[in-house]
Amino acid sequence: METKGKIAIIGSGLIGQSWAMIFASASYRVQLFDVVQENVKKALETIEAKLNDLSSKKLLRGNIPAAKQISLITGASSLSEVVEGAFYVQECVFERLDLKVKVFADLDAIVSPSTILASSTSCFPPSKFSSELKNRSNVLVAHPVNPPYFVPLIELVKSPYTSDEITDKARALMIDVGQKPVVLNKEVQGFAVNRIQYVILMECYRLIADGVISVEDIDAVMSEGLGMRYAFIGPWETAHLNANGMQDYFDKYADGILRVLDDMGPNRKFEGETAKKIADQLTKKIPLDKLRDRIKWRDENLIALSQVKRRNSSQ
Amino acid sequence: METKGKIAIIGSGLIGQSWAMIFASASYRVQLFDVVQENVKKALETIEAKLNDLSSKKLLRGNIPAAKQISLITGASSLSEVVEGAFYVQECVFERLDLKVKVFADLDAIVSPSTILASSTSCFPPSKFSSELKNRSNVLVAHPVNPPYFVPLIELVKSPYTSDEITDKARALMIDVGQKPVVLNKEVQGFAVNRIQYVILMECYRLIADGVISVEDIDAVMSEGLGMRYAFIGPWETAHLNANGMQDYFDKYADGILRVLDDMGPNRKFEGETAKKIADQLTKKIPLDKLRDRIKWRDENLIALSQVKRRNSSQ
Repeated sequence: METKGKIAIIGSGLIGQSWAMIFASASYRVQLFDVVQENVKKALETIEAKLNDLSSKKLLRGNIPAAKQISLITGASSLSEVVEGAFYVQECVFERLDLKVKVFADLDAIVSPSTILASSTSCFPPSKFSSELKNRSNVLVAHPVNPPYFVPLIELVKSPYTSDEITDKARALMIDVGQKPVVLNKEVQGFAVNRIQYVILMECYRLIADGVISVEDIDAVMSEGLGMRYAFIGPWETAHLNANGMQDYFDKYADGILRVLDDMGPNRKFEGETAKKIADQLTKKIPLDKLRDRIKWRDENLIALSQVKRRNSSQ
Repeated sequence: METKGKIAIIGSGLIGQSWAMIFASASYRVQLFDVVQENVKKALETIEAKLNDLSSKKLLRGNIPAAKQISLITGASSLSEVVEGAFYVQECVFERLDLKVKVFADLDAIVSPSTILASSTSCFPPSKFSSELKNRSNVLVAHPVNPPYFVPLIELVKSPYTSDEITDKARALMIDVGQKPVVLNKEVQGFAVNRIQYVILMECYRLIADGVISVEDIDAVMSEGLGMRYAFIGPWETAHLNANGMQDYFDKYADGILRVLDDMGPNRKFEGETAKKIADQLTKKIPLDKLRDRIKWRDENLIALSQVKRRNSSQ
């Protein structure tokens, strides 16, 4: 299989490594850069070990062997080297706005006018670091979900300046590498993923604070109930299948839903006694020194789930 | 294996059938009653076919063969016959409050003072049909999630009158039959499952109505992103693993979360142009005459997922 174009990754942490592995799995040449040069070397070693491990477990993505994928990922010693010849740049530096502003300004000065510039940020709307750039129409957010190698969703968030052409190209690239892009046409705080996470957390918090249910039980409402369906179908399709179609669902439940929602009362700050109770319960279940083990367990489940989904995705 | 006590099921529709199969899988004797006598016969035939089918696909629950499970489920021709000797009654009649009130009043007149009386209702707080009963301390809601044979969650909802002893017994029964009970100590509209479904639907609705994202893409945010994790871990554990523990998550994000949530604006009624757009998109994806096929596909996925979860549940 021929290799495809070159992709530049800025920042060599976990997310940068995941992106590199995803792009290489689909035969793109990937170059990694980090302001700390030593980190690039470490990242390349980690990636090599991970890809070999995935291969031995038959979990490697893509149609080319691990050795070939590893050979597609190299390091760069400067920003100009990493973007040289790259048609797409994925920024993965720390979540600090001043850093993003600096990285994108630096990129703006050296990239070609056709290069797609994507940020992995989960919280900063792209205009916050792109509005002053001459290439601002080429900048968007491409926000993955942890762990990106096994969870396909990518939020593509447009700024008011992002061109449709750039968005379409980023979307096509994500599909080509086996991710599932969704497009946010407007900047909203928290994008879609975190907005949905937050409304869930808030109602769970109120139910605990009001003595309705325990911390453990509300997590089970999701993991042993709702979440099992959500692994395959979104909230609208869930409703569509739970009634005689969506219109029937609206006809039957729209009034009742509004009544229930209007009964919930205002948002609350996650602090004080209830927050402490939640933190204590979670730490009791998974002590901080066991977090890594539990993340490994979560990822093993996600791997098995992604195999189920792939097998049954014919429809 | 010895059979255990007797359980009465009132109402022989899909939910009644599911409960019968779940209880029989754990060696309980089950008797089914329906006001339409003919429905009992049909339900028993359907159950027999389903259990044989599950058995042939190696998906049968429990440790006893299908033939034995089938023999544990019989029909009753009257309410007094079905509750005779039953230690637990599971009501599964239509979701109409007047019906529930009548059924529970009828039960109240004939059951022994130790019988647990559970309703499958998804919407009526138990006090609405139990407050006038002499056995009101024995009444609670045991609300399953579709499809109950493969989704373990059961919401046990107490009325102000439900005794702790009855709740504990219902909880122990649910665990014994392989479901996952959670306890709601107070009556709240929508219980926990629907409250969480509704906050999700509302934010998805606003994002569509405001032109941020398409109907299809917001469903993918869940099914290709958040929902994959929620199939294994609840919202709090998700947060615990996404930071250096829950307290770290609160310290880092509590202010930001409140800011995002307070930005969302009021609840809206699901009606008009946006509701039509959602219904149209869902009907385009899954026409009404294909709903059954898609439900079958969903359930096949849930079966595969429940096998993954069982295999990896060691922790």
